[in-house]
Amino acid sequence: MTDNLLYWEDFPPGDIMDMGSHTFTEAEIIAFARQFDPQTFHVDPVAAKHSFFGGLIASGWHTCAIAMRLMVDKYVSRSASLGSPGLDNIRWLAPVRAGDTIRYRRTTTAARPSESKPGIGLVHSRWEAVNQRGETVMTMEGWGMFRRRPA
Amino acid sequence: MTDNLLYWEDFPPGDIMDMGSHTFTEAEIIAFARQFDPQTFHVDPVAAKHSFFGGLIASGWHTCAIAMRLMVDKYVSRSASLGSPGLDNIRWLAPVRAGDTIRYRRTTTAARPSESKPGIGLVHSRWEAVNQRGETVMTMEGWGMFRRRPA
Repeated sequence: MTDNLLYWEDFPPGDIMDMGSHTFTEAEIIAFARQFDPQTFHVDPVAAKHSFFGGLIASGWHTCAIAMRLMVDKYVSRSASLGSPGLDNIRWLAPVRAGDTIRYRRTTTAARPSESKPGIGLVHSRWEAVNQRGETVMTMEGWGMFRRRPA
Repeated sequence: MTDNLLYWEDFPPGDIMDMGSHTFTEAEIIAFARQFDPQTFHVDPVAAKHSFFGGLIASGWHTCAIAMRLMVDKYVSRSASLGSPGLDNIRWLAPVRAGDTIRYRRTTTAARPSESKPGIGLVHSRWEAVNQRGETVMTMEGWGMFRRRPA
């Protein structure tokens, strides 16, 4: 029996995957921040002009949540994914402003079979988010768990 | 002139802050996940029963986004916060299920003045999220930037 699922074997070290892009509108930056991160420079375009950041910027969590959404759309939803134990080294390197188009990319930085769970493998990825001017706005790393391809 | 803002000096090492709690409903778990993390075990209670997790669980990003919201409500909104350069060691240690009440806590693990920016200080925090059974469901760490108290 064959299937079209992506298994652990489909994420080898060095694998680079373009996850697509997302344009952040002012309305969605404000909507996300009102719910989860209502700091002035995330929710109030006028007051944000006088802030440290000189204008409205997206919550860093918003930049990450969109990364997650693009992961699901691009590969997680058609994979034998078993979730993730966590993430490391999230860095918000430059502001994301209304109208910015952010492109996301995943690179496999390591892969190994699980030591404790037969049939499961671990994939270490690095994600990068880059704006339309080529500036990296966010990077993060972490392990994902996937089932191994059935024999 | 005095004010009521919290400055860098108000987050000394060892400072422990109860950030309050949040009860995750099935509806909000699904609403968050439909937008940002539409994996089966986050959006479909029936299919989730047959998944690795045995039932619907909140997206790990949702657990973190609520942490951010409680941070803002508890201290960031009344502080001289200048945002955060990033976070480390996010660990999703146990599932968050519908009806779970999660309590969040912040501890200052280190604090130092900025080396490059006069008038600014850095606070390193560890956040912990614990459910109603005392199980730690999420931990994370990171630096925040705050203005120093005016002389």
